[in-house]
Amino acid sequence: MKLAALQMQALAGAQAANLARIERAARDAASFGADLLAVPELALPGYGAGAAMAALAETADGALMDSLAQIARATGVAIVAGFAERDGADVYNSAVFIDGRGNKVVYRKSHLYGSYEKDLFRPQPPETRLFEVAGLKLGMLICYDVEFPENVRRLAKAGAQGVIVPTALPAGDNGSFIAEHMIAVRAFENQVFVAYVNHCGSDALFTYAGLSRIAAPDGSMLAAAGSSDEGLLVAELDPAAYAASAEANTYLQDAG
Amino acid sequence: MKLAALQMQALAGAQAANLARIERAARDAASFGADLLAVPELALPGYGAGAAMAALAETADGALMDSLAQIARATGVAIVAGFAERDGADVYNSAVFIDGRGNKVVYRKSHLYGSYEKDLFRPQPPETRLFEVAGLKLGMLICYDVEFPENVRRLAKAGAQGVIVPTALPAGDNGSFIAEHMIAVRAFENQVFVAYVNHCGSDALFTYAGLSRIAAPDGSMLAAAGSSDEGLLVAELDPAAYAASAEANTYLQDAG
Repeated sequence: MKLAALQMQALAGAQAANLARIERAARDAASFGADLLAVPELALPGYGAGAAMAALAETADGALMDSLAQIARATGVAIVAGFAERDGADVYNSAVFIDGRGNKVVYRKSHLYGSYEKDLFRPQPPETRLFEVAGLKLGMLICYDVEFPENVRRLAKAGAQGVIVPTALPAGDNGSFIAEHMIAVRAFENQVFVAYVNHCGSDALFTYAGLSRIAAPDGSMLAAAGSSDEGLLVAELDPAAYAASAEANTYLQDAG
Repeated sequence: MKLAALQMQALAGAQAANLARIERAARDAASFGADLLAVPELALPGYGAGAAMAALAETADGALMDSLAQIARATGVAIVAGFAERDGADVYNSAVFIDGRGNKVVYRKSHLYGSYEKDLFRPQPPETRLFEVAGLKLGMLICYDVEFPENVRRLAKAGAQGVIVPTALPAGDNGSFIAEHMIAVRAFENQVFVAYVNHCGSDALFTYAGLSRIAAPDGSMLAAAGSSDEGLLVAELDPAAYAASAEANTYLQDAG
């Protein structure tokens, strides 16, 4: 499975512009032969949309999802994208997997970070929602979720071979540590691929760490972005290439 | 609490010589004002003792433990040391905490690694055995145990502020990854100190990775050894110094 991950500078509150940016990235991803494009947490409304977030929230079967499906259909590239999900009176910090063949899976963030997110969103109890792209079984987590080893373990035990993680990691020492050490360890300790797809740049509220990366099951980096600029990471995710690592590191069998 | 950690080249099967090496390290640790000395997994029999292991196994209230207690009493330095524990017909891969004031806590490895260990030892279901040194609450894990996030989480949730990990990590890519990334992440994701105390050099069966280290709750390294040589790491473990990190990273409260 060939994965493209867009490190993105989303415009806070400018959902149409962000959708257009994702469409452009999907075309680029298609030119690399990618099967799947992943973009950051709340890439559509912009993570820093703040008070505008509720008004930008859309239902999981609304027009915004139709637009993403249309991009997937037109480019032949499936998409994982963060969006604000409206469900009645509630708003969730969600990510959708959508392809051009009518498949759609929505994951809602379970571990909201800090008062900013807790004021805007409702948390969802941890859920395991797997889907398949080009033969690879995948799950989703969002940002802070992946910092809890329990969440990646849950997906791996359910059979996920890779975890797509839209994120909005802020710049700073903790951010660098999470990107540069923790993501590789999450991959290694579960023998799964982990794609960690972040924002870069700043909006009125936050400055983001960049440092998006795609980690292999042996903890090595297949692709990694810098801290500042937008960019499209592309990597081939082939579990068979890590058979030796999986044989040496039998964590899932031994975890009990 | 001041911790000393001995990266050690134990002699396989030479328990008396290894005990003497630990005694020398305890005297050095005392000269640094250390409260606790940690030495590697199976430091007393030697990790590579192989077929001789069962004959070197001693009970948790036997003469070997008395010798360690005597060293702790004479130097004023408490000790965490790996030993082969005899319990009737069973042999465990254990670590003991012992001080000069009659305190003794034994932890038995829960996650045995590979056929070498599984042939020699009986596994113990995961246990939480805490003790206190100079006001700091500590737990123990042994080698492969710490590679499972569940084990460190269990100790941290029970109130451990630090985890002492005698280990016998073999040289190689996986070994380097574990020492250089995973240990820091275990500390960071639980906001605890982690002391990872390895062998160096070779015996007839194994070559060890060295790379012993003491990680702080913010993931930074307080002390780290190289890959080849013996050495005594010394670090001050003060949780108050990481209050800002603990406030920013509320994993234990948020883990649910």
